Amino acid sequence: MILHMTSNQPIRVAVAGASGYAGGETLRLLAAHPHVEVGAVTAHSNAGARLGELHPHLRSLAHKVLEPTTPESLKGHDVVVLALPHGASGEIAAQLPEDVLVLDLGADHRLESAADWEAFYGSAHAGTWPYGLPELVRPDGTRQRAALAGARRVAVPGCNVTAVTLGLQPGVAAGLVETRDLVAVLAVGYSGAGKALKAHLLASEALGSAQPYAVGGTHRHIPEIVQNLRAAGGEDVSLSFTPVLVPMSRGILATATARLVQGTTPAQVREAWELAYADEPFVEVLPEGQWPTTAMTLGANTALVQVAVDEAAGRVVTVTAIDNLVKGTAGAAVQSMNLALGLRETAGLVTEGVAP
Amino acid sequence: MILHMTSNQPIRVAVAGASGYAGGETLRLLAAHPHVEVGAVTAHSNAGARLGELHPHLRSLAHKVLEPTTPESLKGHDVVVLALPHGASGEIAAQLPEDVLVLDLGADHRLESAADWEAFYGSAHAGTWPYGLPELVRPDGTRQRAALAGARRVAVPGCNVTAVTLGLQPGVAAGLVETRDLVAVLAVGYSGAGKALKAHLLASEALGSAQPYAVGGTHRHIPEIVQNLRAAGGEDVSLSFTPVLVPMSRGILATATARLVQGTTPAQVREAWELAYADEPFVEVLPEGQWPTTAMTLGANTALVQVAVDEAAGRVVTVTAIDNLVKGTAGAAVQSMNLALGLRETAGLVTEGVAP
Amino acid sequence: MILHMTSNQPIRVAVAGASGYAGGETLRLLAAHPHVEVGAVTAHSNAGARLGELHPHLRSLAHKVLEPTTPESLKGHDVVVLALPHGASGEIAAQLPEDVLVLDLGADHRLESAADWEAFYGSAHAGTWPYGLPELVRPDGTRQRAALAGARRVAVPGCNVTAVTLGLQPGVAAGLVETRDLVAVLAVGYSGAGKALKAHLLASEALGSAQPYAVGGTHRHIPEIVQNLRAAGGEDVSLSFTPVLVPMSRGILATATARLVQGTTPAQVREAWELAYADEPFVEVLPEGQWPTTAMTLGANTALVQVAVDEAAGRVVTVTAIDNLVKGTAGAAVQSMNLALGLRETAGLVTEGVAP
Amino acid sequence: MILHMTSNQPIRVAVAGASGYAGGETLRLLAAHPHVEVGAVTAHSNAGARLGELHPHLRSLAHKVLEPTTPESLKGHDVVVLALPHGASGEIAAQLPEDVLVLDLGADHRLESAADWEAFYGSAHAGTWPYGLPELVRPDGTRQRAALAGARRVAVPGCNVTAVTLGLQPGVAAGLVETRDLVAVLAVGYSGAGKALKAHLLASEALGSAQPYAVGGTHRHIPEIVQNLRAAGGEDVSLSFTPVLVPMSRGILATATARLVQGTTPAQVREAWELAYADEPFVEVLPEGQWPTTAMTLGANTALVQVAVDEAAGRVVTVTAIDNLVKGTAGAAVQSMNLALGLRETAGLVTEGVAP
Repeated sequence: MILHMTSNQPIRVAVAGASGYAGGETLRLLAAHPHVEVGAVTAHSNAGARLGELHPHLRSLAHKVLEPTTPESLKGHDVVVLALPHGASGEIAAQLPEDVLVLDLGADHRLESAADWEAFYGSAHAGTWPYGLPELVRPDGTRQRAALAGARRVAVPGCNVTAVTLGLQPGVAAGLVETRDLVAVLAVGYSGAGKALKAHLLASEALGSAQPYAVGGTHRHIPEIVQNLRAAGGEDVSLSFTPVLVPMSRGILATATARLVQGTTPAQVREAWELAYADEPFVEVLPEGQWPTTAMTLGANTALVQVAVDEAAGRVVTVTAIDNLVKGTAGAAVQSMNLALGLRETAGLVTEGVAP
Repeated sequence: MILHMTSNQPIRVAVAGASGYAGGETLRLLAAHPHVEVGAVTAHSNAGARLGELHPHLRSLAHKVLEPTTPESLKGHDVVVLALPHGASGEIAAQLPEDVLVLDLGADHRLESAADWEAFYGSAHAGTWPYGLPELVRPDGTRQRAALAGARRVAVPGCNVTAVTLGLQPGVAAGLVETRDLVAVLAVGYSGAGKALKAHLLASEALGSAQPYAVGGTHRHIPEIVQNLRAAGGEDVSLSFTPVLVPMSRGILATATARLVQGTTPAQVREAWELAYADEPFVEVLPEGQWPTTAMTLGANTALVQVAVDEAAGRVVTVTAIDNLVKGTAGAAVQSMNLALGLRETAGLVTEGVAP
Repeated sequence: MILHMTSNQPIRVAVAGASGYAGGETLRLLAAHPHVEVGAVTAHSNAGARLGELHPHLRSLAHKVLEPTTPESLKGHDVVVLALPHGASGEIAAQLPEDVLVLDLGADHRLESAADWEAFYGSAHAGTWPYGLPELVRPDGTRQRAALAGARRVAVPGCNVTAVTLGLQPGVAAGLVETRDLVAVLAVGYSGAGKALKAHLLASEALGSAQPYAVGGTHRHIPEIVQNLRAAGGEDVSLSFTPVLVPMSRGILATATARLVQGTTPAQVREAWELAYADEPFVEVLPEGQWPTTAMTLGANTALVQVAVDEAAGRVVTVTAIDNLVKGTAGAAVQSMNLALGLRETAGLVTEGVAP
Repeated sequence: MILHMTSNQPIRVAVAGASGYAGGETLRLLAAHPHVEVGAVTAHSNAGARLGELHPHLRSLAHKVLEPTTPESLKGHDVVVLALPHGASGEIAAQLPEDVLVLDLGADHRLESAADWEAFYGSAHAGTWPYGLPELVRPDGTRQRAALAGARRVAVPGCNVTAVTLGLQPGVAAGLVETRDLVAVLAVGYSGAGKALKAHLLASEALGSAQPYAVGGTHRHIPEIVQNLRAAGGEDVSLSFTPVLVPMSRGILATATARLVQGTTPAQVREAWELAYADEPFVEVLPEGQWPTTAMTLGANTALVQVAVDEAAGRVVTVTAIDNLVKGTAGAAVQSMNLALGLRETAGLVTEGVAP
């Protein structure tokens, strides 16, 4: 199957769970990917519908009809993207051939600790897959990227996780910040909450308002962030994490702070952050004094990071902006797919946000 | 210079007036264009700045430095895009070689009638250039597209104009609607008002509010729409036109209505609209009963049209959604450039909006 | 019961259907009304809940517990406000004593024509109650206000209806405009669509987008507007009506146009509109050249109107801004209650919007 | 002058700096105040304009003409509200009689430490006035309220300051939290940034985006919060503070966290917060599990607070919602005025937000 990459035949990709926002965004990116042909698109309750009814913005795929999500409908593809509720992907994946690349946008295969999984998700742990955050830094300077080459199972990270990890990990890997008392507060767009019909997600409730949720250490992304920062070198990691829904459809602006290790200078901080991402195609530390906004990243696979030292508070403050559906979800999947299949890492992905 | 098109050398494009929204959007599209290399970017008061300071979302062009807008800085390009205040483009264009393709995003060269120009703009008429709306229909079924092949001067249409023209012209060209008493009301995003620092454009004034402007027949896009619908076959065209700013950054949703010629059936209406755009890559009549929204077109060069007959009112109602900065401005310029240079019309343009 | 008005005892008001937006807004206004005591609050599926769970913004009423909506729970009040789905209010009202003032926020008792009711609502007509738009003008210069004094049943108008009627009726009553070919397009906030859990009402769908609905003559407010403009003197009334949801929680900005009767001058238009509302406490024609926005009316019982003549198009254009939940619903109910009970018409209502 | 309070004569209030958002909001509240008559309204560059041109939402005051801001125009009032840029109020106040109540909405007289003032504002310290946050708690359980009775000079707090102080002070006063490493991140509406014409405040930049500002310990509200929490009993107070502008016109949602003193139980936390505000008319701790949103407080003088213990992170997390222009500015001024003049503390103020 790896032959595709050197042949002229397109890579055939199926998307399971195509009716939701994550599935739709994956299809938007795949439609623009130079080496991909979209194959089966599947759904549960929406099986039988035309894609144009559910995602009218996907003009070139509007004619495709959603099939039921079964192993049969997903057969015969080089790549299968699972955009399913957590708990559903393990079973499907087990029935797909081992040489098919399976990218799971759900949480099932992200956590290494079965105890963490059970504590936050309340069900049996499904096992761990290679983690689809290529930029994840190790204390020795290597990246997660290497672990994705040739992979055939990939767990795509959570959107909030990506924003907070990218903001803090340079300081953790460089040993400049304490990891015991991290605090992150995120301004989050509503597409991050999915298409579920819930009263607090209605436009009339959201417009003109900011509303927090999962306050007080209950959000399921917390153990995943902790795991990442441990991988980056943090020994004793604890995190206060509060997401706040604000009136925008897409975007995460994560403000994440850490106490500085005593004696750390602003110049060291600047250098560590800039160095960490100097060679990354999709993560950029902005010039000093320029702060990221979510609009800068809309529709793009870009993460923009800025960092400042607050000497009076003894803390470093980082702000990271991403599009939750792109670098936070579907873009990370495509980037991981490119790496897994040996394609150019940036194929089919843009760095320019749709702004203003 | 036409040799570029058959050679492997990229087309070099300069953008004058690169600091505004129209210029920035043009650069966003050019950065993704497979045959283009961005050359000079120029500005007036922002000359000397890095593009990354003004358009931080344009990551791959962030290093470019804005030059002053002069004929010298624009020399040596195959294509020059003028994103200047009206009145400024004529002079610059006169100093550019005749074989350079000049695309004017401003209004200066759109109107054929000097009297209309003087009445609505209060200055001397600068002459008329081929009009950059490839989909403009003639009563004989031909399109404006033909007039753009090989053109070296193109007047790109106004954003509201494109939305209203695309909505109404199928009925006009087919002789199904009366053109004497057209009414259009548009919900318009704030980027359409540009980057000018005016109190009514502040976020605090815009959020949670809808505000009309240029009410009562004063908007400068009126004579341009009338001109288009005359070209489509309307003899006696009059239009009531009201734009309403609503709290979104991009997008135009144009509701445009016309009285039906007596005896016209809903089936005739449907057929006329569907036929008009059946072969268009960027304009689509949605399936019956599905209505366009602006989000479906965000960042894409797509116009979505729907039409319904209100028999009690004796009117046809059309709704057209576009992204004002793409199909309404920069996308129309790129599409026209592709046609003028003999490239594939869709090169560098996407049809999938960034939604939700 | 009328004794309350001259006594010091508060008027006891019950609200049936208190869990929705219309019911909640009624309670917000009643909480600030100097002569009112809120009595029973009732609901269907939410019976048993504390009001503070459903409307956390109503601090002073948070402790009240919702009772089931039955004639029993509504007994013993001077006034009952019905904020129920259409079809439900007739039955309840029939079981309430005749000397209790019943204000119906639903549509059931607004239309005089049983045929119109059946055509647009598909059920049997429930009869007509005095119409709660005090400012409705008659050709002889009298107002609907007179019909509300002492009334014990009031049908509160639809929100879009109020905006369009107030915008157009001065010209109709003065005989300056033709009523055969009216066109209205409205920018409407999401609270107007209620609290129903529907996909197109989700914040992620609404933010950054404008979406039309009920296009082509199907909206149920059309016959009500036609009825009002007939009352104002229009003989042959037809209306093209298109509502567009835009990203704001509250507010209606109605652009409504009519052909001018030949020979009508702009000065006549101005005079007719200004005269029509010169003595109205809640409707104001803005100074020439100043256009209403919805934010100006947020939370207030104010309607702001502006009018301009478009001589080239032969049309008068009116723009009217209201808060759909106040002057469009709950404020109209309180204003009507005041009139029916002989209180000061403005009691408990404010004219100052919460802006910016 | 104190006689007014027992007489039937209204209190005459002048507003200096009436053209901005703080001045406008003060006028909105004063227009609804039962004991107040609005006197002079003054401005600098807008002197001579009608109030209706600048604040078209203030219908009952639209006719008033702005006078220049001079001691003369402010004479003859019982109360003068100064809504001026910082640095301007000291001079004006010095020329007003000592028995006139002067409420300064600006920062000039808030800070007790001249060193703090000079460090954050870069000018000479103007002295300290009684601080207009009646709910400010002392370790002995008394409140700032007492210091306002009879006061004739009041420094009204900053909006962000009020939100963070109210969120954290119960734990500080009760000795349950450490004050050395506080972290606050705020979602802030655009009216908080004022009416200044700056590019990043344009609607096109704000819509669909979240943008931080004054990151890294530079915001001028920091020393004021620190001062308040010292007053509440904190000995060694340090604070990391990051405001994030989000697409809403009004509102602050402050997420503020502190490390718990070892051994503190969730029950102690709950009790401390509930007790702190049990008797407050405008501050409310929501029932456990219900989180505040800014929409719940729109237009009201209400602060809603919630608190949770994150045992894994060892932190208490508080979320506080206010309307920045009401409880954050103009409402605090009216509340302080009521206390200073011996009126009912709640006169002219509402607790019900305009929601949804």
